[in-house]
Amino acid sequence: MRIDIITVVPDILKSPFEASILKRAIEKGHVEIHLHNLRDYVTDNYKQIDDYQFGGGAGMVMMIEPIDKCITKLKSERNYDEVIYMTPDGATLNQKMANRVSMMENIIILCGHYKGVDQRVRDHFITKEISVGDYVLSGGELGAAILCDAVIRLIPGVLGNETSALTDSFQDNLLAPPVYTRPAEYKGWKVPEILTTGNFPKIEEWRENEAFKRTKKLRPDLLDED
Amino acid sequence: MRIDIITVVPDILKSPFEASILKRAIEKGHVEIHLHNLRDYVTDNYKQIDDYQFGGGAGMVMMIEPIDKCITKLKSERNYDEVIYMTPDGATLNQKMANRVSMMENIIILCGHYKGVDQRVRDHFITKEISVGDYVLSGGELGAAILCDAVIRLIPGVLGNETSALTDSFQDNLLAPPVYTRPAEYKGWKVPEILTTGNFPKIEEWRENEAFKRTKKLRPDLLDED
Repeated sequence: MRIDIITVVPDILKSPFEASILKRAIEKGHVEIHLHNLRDYVTDNYKQIDDYQFGGGAGMVMMIEPIDKCITKLKSERNYDEVIYMTPDGATLNQKMANRVSMMENIIILCGHYKGVDQRVRDHFITKEISVGDYVLSGGELGAAILCDAVIRLIPGVLGNETSALTDSFQDNLLAPPVYTRPAEYKGWKVPEILTTGNFPKIEEWRENEAFKRTKKLRPDLLDED
Repeated sequence: MRIDIITVVPDILKSPFEASILKRAIEKGHVEIHLHNLRDYVTDNYKQIDDYQFGGGAGMVMMIEPIDKCITKLKSERNYDEVIYMTPDGATLNQKMANRVSMMENIIILCGHYKGVDQRVRDHFITKEISVGDYVLSGGELGAAILCDAVIRLIPGVLGNETSALTDSFQDNLLAPPVYTRPAEYKGWKVPEILTTGNFPKIEEWRENEAFKRTKKLRPDLLDED
């Protein structure tokens, strides 16, 4: 998979891809990440990428021309499954969407910043708008990092133990059951006895039951989904 | 505001705080970010912070002792409003929650990694569990970065123009209206005429109308909230 990220602050995105699982996924060749600095696509001397909004009001808006140039250049080099814009009013990211994106070959992710991009960018260049949640961030960069992380860990071979991703929360519309590790007792707090019995069918039953109970208590809405 | 972040991979969190708005907020003294590497709180020679889960199954679990030591040390130094655990089964972050957290003085954010933390950590040390959305990440670090970003930009003085945050999506249960900037015409695509008239009351009316239309089309659920 190849991911091209277009941003005005590529610096924000350095360390998330240089550590842990994402770093290993890149090193193993499961994914290529290419960061594109929008300022490299500006022709004037001021390297201007944003401007005041028409009609007045606080906050700067990202201009259409540099974005057009960057996207058009990338699209001339290969085919993209989607040109994604990270924005709080996009479709809310969930696990199903992450699963779907993880099967794509090439995607572009455009990060908004300031007040966002000129609406004409969204009307003419963007094929999919994604939000990571109902809150506003100072830019789309961290949203892009979240999308990449959620997606890349699902690519076969990225996680050491593939069954690990399958037992995550949301993969079956259930939250994950509680987990425990050594010591079996800490300051008088003990792990549930069933987990130390070695009776694996019973343990599996307990876990399913706990996952269901936790989901019913914390997120009953998940149980209603198909 | 002071934010203490506890993590096994502090490297992931470097660059988000070293660029753009978060960097300036730290430099101006609006917020202090302290990263704590969990491995510094391990006493054995192997620097072990995780272990297999009781009852078997894929994925490692973060052990209780190092987390206990780190949180207990921090709490001995000052009072904390909340000890937050980033987890996909926590309460889903939204703008109202971000507003509330932005008014706190000291918070601890514990980032889960691998399969998460030993349940006893959640039962005995955590006061608030937050999820950034219905998807699984390789760790809580990017979720912590998202929470910090959503919260810090709301602290008075952080954004250059304070009215900018007030006209964001979600602050009034409405998505933001479309924005446009120069040029007024690009490849035949024009900005809506009203925005270039200078008739500000009419422009305000148009924006409110567009925000409502967009919300009704994309996120009718927001209009039902109080």
